[in-house]
Amino acid sequence: MNVSVDREGRALLVVAHGSRRGASNDEVRRLTDALRSRATAFEWVECAFLELAEPSIPGGLESLVERGAREIVVLPYFLSAGRHVVEDIPGEIADVATRHPAVRIRQAAYLGDSAGIVSLMLEQAGSPADA
Amino acid sequence: MNVSVDREGRALLVVAHGSRRGASNDEVRRLTDALRSRATAFEWVECAFLELAEPSIPGGLESLVERGAREIVVLPYFLSAGRHVVEDIPGEIADVATRHPAVRIRQAAYLGDSAGIVSLMLEQAGSPADA
Repeated sequence: MNVSVDREGRALLVVAHGSRRGASNDEVRRLTDALRSRATAFEWVECAFLELAEPSIPGGLESLVERGAREIVVLPYFLSAGRHVVEDIPGEIADVATRHPAVRIRQAAYLGDSAGIVSLMLEQAGSPADA
Repeated sequence: MNVSVDREGRALLVVAHGSRRGASNDEVRRLTDALRSRATAFEWVECAFLELAEPSIPGGLESLVERGAREIVVLPYFLSAGRHVVEDIPGEIADVATRHPAVRIRQAAYLGDSAGIVSLMLEQAGSPADA
């Protein structure tokens, strides 16, 4: 099936916590690269960090706006709905959204909220495939 | 296909960071319940927390040993290979393992290391299913 997707002007920003450990941040960057090669619905796929690494969330969002993004999906790379997901990320998004009212910025559900997370855990545990 | 799995004496311990926010810890507990109903390869499926919530990792492991576990898989519910995954969790496991040499305790790869994580991110981003 050949699905035509209008990805023009659409961007995905993966937001991770950020770590003092450079390898952890690089892991997020590599994952973002892998995502970019598969995320056919987005013209741009980038990552940003809440703290301890660059770019920041405002920095990542502003960069996408400068490149022409009109719609940005922010995907929290977090496993639980802690303060970062519930307060900090929405707060950072709101600040940028105020400066760019013509750009639609939407926060997706955090990764741990995914319906597929239990299957992933089963796989990692070396359990037989879910019957 | 009817697959007979020898799950006797096998336990899965999901290890999360733990949060001051009770709802985050409850989220891990609910996920563990969901996992329990599907993890056919394990007689027991429980969770434990590195800090800020109960049971602790040693507490969770000891409880499984008391209940008869001979083999325990510890699954780090973490997205990156930070200090917690690389040092803290192995350290806690090693302490308990020393006290119970007959019990085999193995740390599985952390959740973020899963091959399926990119597909999960695509789903959460509202991207069309991976072609």
